[in-house]
Amino acid sequence: MAQKKSRPAVVLLSGGLDSATALALAKSQGYLLYALTFDYGQRHRAELEAAGKIADTVGVVEHRVVTLDVGWMGGSALTDNEIAVPQQPGEGIPVTYVPARNTIFLAVALAWAETLVARDIIIGINAVDYSGYPDCRPEFLEAFNALAALATRAGVDGRTIRVLAPLMDMDKAGIIRTGDRLGVDYALTLSCYNPDNAGRACGHCDSCRFRAQGFAEAKVADPTRYH
Amino acid sequence: MAQKKSRPAVVLLSGGLDSATALALAKSQGYLLYALTFDYGQRHRAELEAAGKIADTVGVVEHRVVTLDVGWMGGSALTDNEIAVPQQPGEGIPVTYVPARNTIFLAVALAWAETLVARDIIIGINAVDYSGYPDCRPEFLEAFNALAALATRAGVDGRTIRVLAPLMDMDKAGIIRTGDRLGVDYALTLSCYNPDNAGRACGHCDSCRFRAQGFAEAKVADPTRYH
Repeated sequence: MAQKKSRPAVVLLSGGLDSATALALAKSQGYLLYALTFDYGQRHRAELEAAGKIADTVGVVEHRVVTLDVGWMGGSALTDNEIAVPQQPGEGIPVTYVPARNTIFLAVALAWAETLVARDIIIGINAVDYSGYPDCRPEFLEAFNALAALATRAGVDGRTIRVLAPLMDMDKAGIIRTGDRLGVDYALTLSCYNPDNAGRACGHCDSCRFRAQGFAEAKVADPTRYH
Repeated sequence: MAQKKSRPAVVLLSGGLDSATALALAKSQGYLLYALTFDYGQRHRAELEAAGKIADTVGVVEHRVVTLDVGWMGGSALTDNEIAVPQQPGEGIPVTYVPARNTIFLAVALAWAETLVARDIIIGINAVDYSGYPDCRPEFLEAFNALAALATRAGVDGRTIRVLAPLMDMDKAGIIRTGDRLGVDYALTLSCYNPDNAGRACGHCDSCRFRAQGFAEAKVADPTRYH
């Protein structure tokens, strides 16, 4: 059994499968959970509802949804209605990449961690399935941690805040097995890039494919609802 | 004369003296200016009005005010009504430090720069007068630039976006002399931590003192209005 910690942690919670698993993992380690979700103009609002349900079910001290009006920038299929979500994996960085998204999310999390006097920020990124995203790589995380040590009063005072990515080296099946063991209710999570208003998945986008394949490989029953 | 550049740059514009000078400097270098201001729950709303007037006067392609609701975090005299703005300089990091503020601002600027296909972000920080702020130091800037190279699609594609801080090594008098030469209308700028609703300065806070001393040392007429 993991060592119990009664320390606060800020956990980034998108409403997806990965962050729900990271939240449950942090809970099992005894952290006091401060969940942070962003309303950044994403096309699928069902994601925000999913995050709320997951936070309620796992049990957090506080869940904040921070509105960040960066959707006007465009540049991503996840925020720009004029860029179609692809039905097939492509080459290189996916069009679902949102410019500097994880940098922005972690910067806000860093501010909250500092005011909470928390030392740990937990993010559910992983480099295995989504290697196309520059801000999901271990080297991105290391660079952010180097920045965090310099950017804050906490860092100057020797209370360095660090970002932990406990799922970094897991594939989708490994993440699902981990969450299943911890009792994560994956029916509450939404991975699809193109869900309907009821939060049902398309079954065709990259994210749906990785998810379905992950459940199959993990030999865990897949509760995903499709439209 | 500086070489003319017809490249876009994102310029952080707070409404204060430093960022107004950085904006004018970028203009003189021929950049196409995209000014970025944050409404982050700062107690003095007059700052936002000042930013708008400065952007209009200098002439920018676009001026965006991004709302970022992080004021609920508290932790700074600039966003929290329960922390008084000090009338005397103290030891160490000032209570006017806003947790991770420049990290958040630069992260959003990085996203905008990436969508604009801009390579340069310009920020008016300087390490001389405000050495107490961790996120105004050269080492902070270097760490952010190292992160930016890894965090974006642009970085992966070899179009690294970098943050420039042209005022980094100037003291307040040097900044004022530079801006005066470039025709900056400092009457439009607001430095005070505790202005009245009409945007008139208190004359007593750290920021007012540095400003008044800067004008005196620069031998430039000080247009600041006090309440």
